[in-house]
Amino acid sequence: MRNILITITYDGTNYFGWQKQNNLPTIENEIQKACSKIFVNGFELIGCSRTDRKVHALGQRATIKTQSNIPIDRICNALNSNLPKDIVVNNACEVDLKFHPRYDAKQKTYEYKILNSKYMIPQLRNFAIFEPRYIDIIKMKEASKYFIGEFDFKGFCSAKTEIKNTVRQIFSVDIQKNNDIIDLYFTGNGFLYNMVRILAGTLLDVGLSKIPVSDIQSIIRSRDRAKAGRTLPAEGLTLISIDY
Amino acid sequence: MRNILITITYDGTNYFGWQKQNNLPTIENEIQKACSKIFVNGFELIGCSRTDRKVHALGQRATIKTQSNIPIDRICNALNSNLPKDIVVNNACEVDLKFHPRYDAKQKTYEYKILNSKYMIPQLRNFAIFEPRYIDIIKMKEASKYFIGEFDFKGFCSAKTEIKNTVRQIFSVDIQKNNDIIDLYFTGNGFLYNMVRILAGTLLDVGLSKIPVSDIQSIIRSRDRAKAGRTLPAEGLTLISIDY
Repeated sequence: MRNILITITYDGTNYFGWQKQNNLPTIENEIQKACSKIFVNGFELIGCSRTDRKVHALGQRATIKTQSNIPIDRICNALNSNLPKDIVVNNACEVDLKFHPRYDAKQKTYEYKILNSKYMIPQLRNFAIFEPRYIDIIKMKEASKYFIGEFDFKGFCSAKTEIKNTVRQIFSVDIQKNNDIIDLYFTGNGFLYNMVRILAGTLLDVGLSKIPVSDIQSIIRSRDRAKAGRTLPAEGLTLISIDY
Repeated sequence: MRNILITITYDGTNYFGWQKQNNLPTIENEIQKACSKIFVNGFELIGCSRTDRKVHALGQRATIKTQSNIPIDRICNALNSNLPKDIVVNNACEVDLKFHPRYDAKQKTYEYKILNSKYMIPQLRNFAIFEPRYIDIIKMKEASKYFIGEFDFKGFCSAKTEIKNTVRQIFSVDIQKNNDIIDLYFTGNGFLYNMVRILAGTLLDVGLSKIPVSDIQSIIRSRDRAKAGRTLPAEGLTLISIDY
């Protein structure tokens, strides 16, 4: 038996997220289909992050357990020739049989992209959200510092979440502005359901002067979803990398 | 009568180019349809550049002659609310009645985007071409200098072209590499049919060491389409700007 760790990039626009669903196109479904053509004697696919509908990835990870002896340097091309053009496997390496792509993840980085211009640029419509109002980047950067550390982020996840432990550690929040594009990068040991989109929505509301910087600490402490900013749309979100 | 100059951005992926065609989606068709809802008493639409199928624009231009008295600052929103999401009008201004968007153009800039990495990034698949082999940027930059000036570019246009005057002036060729992305920018007083895609294909062949830098001048002088490089695919091409 071998355990193969793959890195996957995808344009999530036309998919109902990562996780397998019957009768709906998902990334996991497509990779399962590709694997079933290559690993004809069976395989087990385990993904790392359950990205939502329309969310993209540059560095999703998954493992494939298989008894196939196909050479490791042929895995990417074999999978890609059986995948649609909006999903590309760009790395494959052998890992220990005990390696688990979800439990062994040390940190994840997500990017949220905002186009801050008077009109949408159509080429970005599936990859960024559009905000024509003035955004104060300095305020956003100030506010972002309060999210760094280990906190109970219960107020920053979907109220639907049934998970018990809502404590997560954020290692860094980086905000970059290039011309009209604002990129927010969040790195942490894990993120709750919708957490990055709510963090981005809260920071954007700070940039729009709807939430004062001085309120951020009390919003985190409140653990109240209603006090944080809105959940920004999925299309602006990209899973950049997962580190082990 | 008024003459309104508009600037149009579009993701050309799903269109059969700019020019109006019966029963096929084109950018001009969509803008005509939007205009017919706003300028109900008639209008005349004249585009500047006839971009090809799958070619994009950040700065296409067109004029609309109309007797409508709709305020100039409401033109963009009025058009955009009647356009599909992959076409956005981002500027409108009044120009002289004699102004012609094609004949009065002083220079145009096109960008050709190449992704030079081992695998395609799916998010770029409609906006760049993919070349996994080593590309020598220094050679491309050296070769690009020979294109600057006024030449007969008969060898750099589609053999189908029936146009008589194939002399054009190129003002600048700028080649930029950022990580895995190579952007070629061409600015000139006009470009022949497929000319930018053939210029980009020739420079790419230089970068791939298929065409020696020292051959460029004789290729231009030959006026022979067969001597220049290949016509690169349309999706990598974007009309950046038109100046008057």
